[in-house]
Amino acid sequence: MSSTYGESLRLTIFGQSHSPAIGVTMEGLPAGLPIDMDALQRFLDRRAPGQHRWSTPRKESDVPEFLSGVHNGRTCGVPLTAIIRNKNTRSGDYAELAACPRPGHADYTGYVKYGQHRDYAGGGHFSGRLTAPLCIAGGICLQLLEQQGIRIFARIRSIAQIRDDAPFTASVAEKPFPTVDDNAGQAMIRCIEDARRDGDSVGGVVECLVLGAPAGLGDPMFGGMENRIAAALFGIPAVKGVEFGDGFDAAALRGSENNDPFAVKDGHIITTTNHCGGILGGITDGMPLLFRVAIKPTPSIAQPQRSVNLTTREPQTLQVHGRHDPCIVPRAVPCVEAAAAVALYDAYRTAQREKE
Amino acid sequence: MSSTYGESLRLTIFGQSHSPAIGVTMEGLPAGLPIDMDALQRFLDRRAPGQHRWSTPRKESDVPEFLSGVHNGRTCGVPLTAIIRNKNTRSGDYAELAACPRPGHADYTGYVKYGQHRDYAGGGHFSGRLTAPLCIAGGICLQLLEQQGIRIFARIRSIAQIRDDAPFTASVAEKPFPTVDDNAGQAMIRCIEDARRDGDSVGGVVECLVLGAPAGLGDPMFGGMENRIAAALFGIPAVKGVEFGDGFDAAALRGSENNDPFAVKDGHIITTTNHCGGILGGITDGMPLLFRVAIKPTPSIAQPQRSVNLTTREPQTLQVHGRHDPCIVPRAVPCVEAAAAVALYDAYRTAQREKE
Amino acid sequence: MSSTYGESLRLTIFGQSHSPAIGVTMEGLPAGLPIDMDALQRFLDRRAPGQHRWSTPRKESDVPEFLSGVHNGRTCGVPLTAIIRNKNTRSGDYAELAACPRPGHADYTGYVKYGQHRDYAGGGHFSGRLTAPLCIAGGICLQLLEQQGIRIFARIRSIAQIRDDAPFTASVAEKPFPTVDDNAGQAMIRCIEDARRDGDSVGGVVECLVLGAPAGLGDPMFGGMENRIAAALFGIPAVKGVEFGDGFDAAALRGSENNDPFAVKDGHIITTTNHCGGILGGITDGMPLLFRVAIKPTPSIAQPQRSVNLTTREPQTLQVHGRHDPCIVPRAVPCVEAAAAVALYDAYRTAQREKE
Amino acid sequence: MSSTYGESLRLTIFGQSHSPAIGVTMEGLPAGLPIDMDALQRFLDRRAPGQHRWSTPRKESDVPEFLSGVHNGRTCGVPLTAIIRNKNTRSGDYAELAACPRPGHADYTGYVKYGQHRDYAGGGHFSGRLTAPLCIAGGICLQLLEQQGIRIFARIRSIAQIRDDAPFTASVAEKPFPTVDDNAGQAMIRCIEDARRDGDSVGGVVECLVLGAPAGLGDPMFGGMENRIAAALFGIPAVKGVEFGDGFDAAALRGSENNDPFAVKDGHIITTTNHCGGILGGITDGMPLLFRVAIKPTPSIAQPQRSVNLTTREPQTLQVHGRHDPCIVPRAVPCVEAAAAVALYDAYRTAQREKE
Repeated sequence: MSSTYGESLRLTIFGQSHSPAIGVTMEGLPAGLPIDMDALQRFLDRRAPGQHRWSTPRKESDVPEFLSGVHNGRTCGVPLTAIIRNKNTRSGDYAELAACPRPGHADYTGYVKYGQHRDYAGGGHFSGRLTAPLCIAGGICLQLLEQQGIRIFARIRSIAQIRDDAPFTASVAEKPFPTVDDNAGQAMIRCIEDARRDGDSVGGVVECLVLGAPAGLGDPMFGGMENRIAAALFGIPAVKGVEFGDGFDAAALRGSENNDPFAVKDGHIITTTNHCGGILGGITDGMPLLFRVAIKPTPSIAQPQRSVNLTTREPQTLQVHGRHDPCIVPRAVPCVEAAAAVALYDAYRTAQREKE
Repeated sequence: MSSTYGESLRLTIFGQSHSPAIGVTMEGLPAGLPIDMDALQRFLDRRAPGQHRWSTPRKESDVPEFLSGVHNGRTCGVPLTAIIRNKNTRSGDYAELAACPRPGHADYTGYVKYGQHRDYAGGGHFSGRLTAPLCIAGGICLQLLEQQGIRIFARIRSIAQIRDDAPFTASVAEKPFPTVDDNAGQAMIRCIEDARRDGDSVGGVVECLVLGAPAGLGDPMFGGMENRIAAALFGIPAVKGVEFGDGFDAAALRGSENNDPFAVKDGHIITTTNHCGGILGGITDGMPLLFRVAIKPTPSIAQPQRSVNLTTREPQTLQVHGRHDPCIVPRAVPCVEAAAAVALYDAYRTAQREKE
Repeated sequence: MSSTYGESLRLTIFGQSHSPAIGVTMEGLPAGLPIDMDALQRFLDRRAPGQHRWSTPRKESDVPEFLSGVHNGRTCGVPLTAIIRNKNTRSGDYAELAACPRPGHADYTGYVKYGQHRDYAGGGHFSGRLTAPLCIAGGICLQLLEQQGIRIFARIRSIAQIRDDAPFTASVAEKPFPTVDDNAGQAMIRCIEDARRDGDSVGGVVECLVLGAPAGLGDPMFGGMENRIAAALFGIPAVKGVEFGDGFDAAALRGSENNDPFAVKDGHIITTTNHCGGILGGITDGMPLLFRVAIKPTPSIAQPQRSVNLTTREPQTLQVHGRHDPCIVPRAVPCVEAAAAVALYDAYRTAQREKE
Repeated sequence: MSSTYGESLRLTIFGQSHSPAIGVTMEGLPAGLPIDMDALQRFLDRRAPGQHRWSTPRKESDVPEFLSGVHNGRTCGVPLTAIIRNKNTRSGDYAELAACPRPGHADYTGYVKYGQHRDYAGGGHFSGRLTAPLCIAGGICLQLLEQQGIRIFARIRSIAQIRDDAPFTASVAEKPFPTVDDNAGQAMIRCIEDARRDGDSVGGVVECLVLGAPAGLGDPMFGGMENRIAAALFGIPAVKGVEFGDGFDAAALRGSENNDPFAVKDGHIITTTNHCGGILGGITDGMPLLFRVAIKPTPSIAQPQRSVNLTTREPQTLQVHGRHDPCIVPRAVPCVEAAAAVALYDAYRTAQREKE
């Protein structure tokens, strides 16, 4: 299946960029959760475009409508569907794309897979806009997790070549441009502005921290937390890499450097370092989870690009019009939190059934 | 579920390091495939220990026995189970571990998850030995894929700080130590020897190339090839990161550098570069698939390490005895190929049902 | 999972009787199917209430809105969500039910499962109204199956003690009250009228015939067509039994009577009888599929009934107000067709992937 | 998938009648269950052939070997695989079947589905012998359920036309021929003997009772207990119908007769009748579960039967040699208990995760 995730909590994301609505159907939510609609809206607003000078000016009010699964403001245990109506779409902007695929986008692969009857307008089902329903699902899971004392934070770790290497602190959650080192943040914003001015785009790395996850979440082998989290994260368009703990840097270490010694603190077993990112054998060890996500530069750029005409098979120069983010990394930050929240809550629910 | 993977092809890996047998149950194989048992054994032998001076001397003859699903040397369409009997085990080596978890291993998380009734000997179900049944499944999928013209190769891209940056060539498949640049390979082997001499271990990066995959495999969002392949790869113990195409390096590029222009060659649509690693929008674009896998250094090292006694909660110094690989990266190479083959064949079968 | 069905085609039904909308999310539909919206509406109208004197006067115009998955009137390969807005609801009718469960309904079990935060109004997610989205999904599958030459018909086989034992003919599809023997049909209608007059209700049996299904659909054991079809049919509220071919009558036969001899007709292998209902070993044999579904009498009756107050645990006499069908069997006929269509199309798609 | 069942507990049954072994792989069992191997063997012996004069004389000692998932006599939380070696097979008996399918068997549908490379000997994967691993899985689940106070009993309700209409009592579990009314039982045994003498076979109905299941198991719609149990039961070869509570008889009742009034007894909410078989809206209501299963007469009979040669397409008279049960209903009794136990335990585990 394509757009479905999860084992104990299952969600399916539906919609195309220009279909009547986009949304999510979630199964497996418990009854009785009071959904804080204001908090959910604030979370969605962090992903929404047009909020800041570094993102696209396209304005959408992504206000979800709950069609089912909610009763008197609380989940009622049965499948929940929430939608966002599409509006302010300019189909005309995309007419050319039917014949000429944009480099870096799914236009060509969508054509191969679905043929002439695909819905290509605005990227169709592949559009980054589909991260809005992911954020609805994730925003609900964040509230469920918070009830269990589990909190999730993401920050911008790098934009292009500019890195924020300051240690992760949860205070980043308050910031409109979520870096720990604000000087690095300012440099990143300038870097994004430069890319925009050049009709170009930049990518970056998002880092995510999970606090309060109990030891024992996840399963061995294909059900490990790395598998589960990665399988959710790669559902965000533009993600090209995922690493846990020291990740690729761990490959350059020796075992004596990379192993995290066990110790006892306040009666609890901890590790004195956390190279493993809080996961051993696929299962959480009670330490903070830490992972990083590589986001490629926005493929939509204003510069002319080389492509081919799918009908004539002739070379064609393509110029993508319309309004596009020169960098989607800031808007990817809540999406990473959402994907992590979905994966964590699903694993949490799965682990619940093992309690006798 | 933990040890199960797949949608159209589903496999469950079972067994513990010291249980009577380990094995795999596979469902969804087509009827009529002649399994080349010699080729399969050669593939399994690449993973087996004790073959080379750079791996553990523990000798096992990993010869699979097919209990079901095979008839007259061919698959017969019904569930296939193959097992490998465990022998030459030294349970005594692991007695201490019941009370004192090894750093970097799943001993502690297995204790949290399964409690006192877990099977900890030799790492139990978390043991690297469980990659043998993965290689049975993968070896069969490699043969199925080869019938479709799809071939998979992996190489050692780095060990510790030593890198092989030569372009990937399929000839690497013939080599006992699969690097493209043999000088780099020799330096890596010395690096492993150094680690062994120091009672330590090293990690590395494995790179994997898939040739001949048609455009159109994979699904949008959570069913993307990145999601599918990553979900399989993180099932290999010690994997801490996965990146596709330029991966984390792509995050440092501009869109104009990272986008792969389309062109026509011999009547087929290609991309003139392959920064995306052959996957756009989760779907293969017909170019070679390329991805890298970070392998952490073997957590089993001879040096004394700090741990805690799970019963007394007192600090304890642990010394892991027994025979262990100072570097599992060479043996991880066929495991990466196996995981990739399972993911690719599953996606291939899934795509088949869309053909009318 | 609760409200999800399918393997290659997966659908989730959502909504409560009085939520803003009810609907279905379907994944796994191929791209390019032209949905005949008029035919779909006619199919939905067969299930809708208020059409005939033997059903409830509650009027709803069950016109589906397609939110996603459709482009220019055709499926486009990505998840399809269709909804029906709820209106003309009278929540007040159900206020008493919060404390006092209706016999024969899911009020009590819903209370046990979901607790005080359940949505009990109108039966919530358990309402028979939720068969409307099942009919959307089934109506689409019927069109997909028809393209493959597979047609599905259901008829009323009995109401209360009155049976229509005439052999099944497809002409039944044209009739507003679908019996083969119209005299039996008239007697059934009188029987329903009698029940209504008595403030009571009656049940019945629906029989379903599938023509044109090729041999080879279904899988052994738990993936058999009986398992698949039964798992879909029991999703219709009020279904209490399912039997294939001769079903329970076969249990009274001898093998020499029940075995269907093979023969060749027009070059095709057939069976000369069809006691097995077209399924052997879980797999279709190319003959018509035939099965029957037991529908219990509508639990909503006007007569006073004994129940208990969930809060006080005191006995309570309950009188169900509102408008209710004295017999849901006629409206269950298209629901059985819909469930069968979903099961058949899912099995058809699954079998497709086995074609090389 | 074919031979896989379950959501929170997942099992895959593998093997062919004449493959090296048959067995089951189970995932999702909790750690720490002490498996009573003697009790399990006694349960398996109830299914085994050759125990009584009314069954086939073919002797097999169905002693399972546990390859994984068990440690020191207890489950250890990871996938469990148990196998039974095949022996005493007479492949020669089945040579003729390659070309000429037995009526009532899956020979023809297996040929259509798997082609020339199928394993037809002894019915291959479709053989009734595959209920042995089902009984291993079911026998383990019965022990797990018993720890929760849930017990499952099945009895022979009818053989051919002879019925045992005495009310169900759990004492039936002690009897070698499990009827409540022993006179009816004796008549049934004579009926089976008659069929054997005639070279024929008879079918029957098995009735199953579940005591102690708490209210709240199961999910709405496709996750209902009826769906779950039916999907398991139809996995037993020869099952052609399943009905819950009054089942098909309920279809002939009025609502005022069929509704089960609620009452309070010893502080618990009960129903004063149990027409619904303990399930309302798919969810258990705390009353005993009751359902019946139609078993067709054994298709293997000694009489000559009409079939066709698959190669020449010529009519052919087939005489099935070898030793066969004239009635499999007695041996189906533990199989029904096993399937019910698997479905119940899976639903029980699923419901566990909803507990906060």
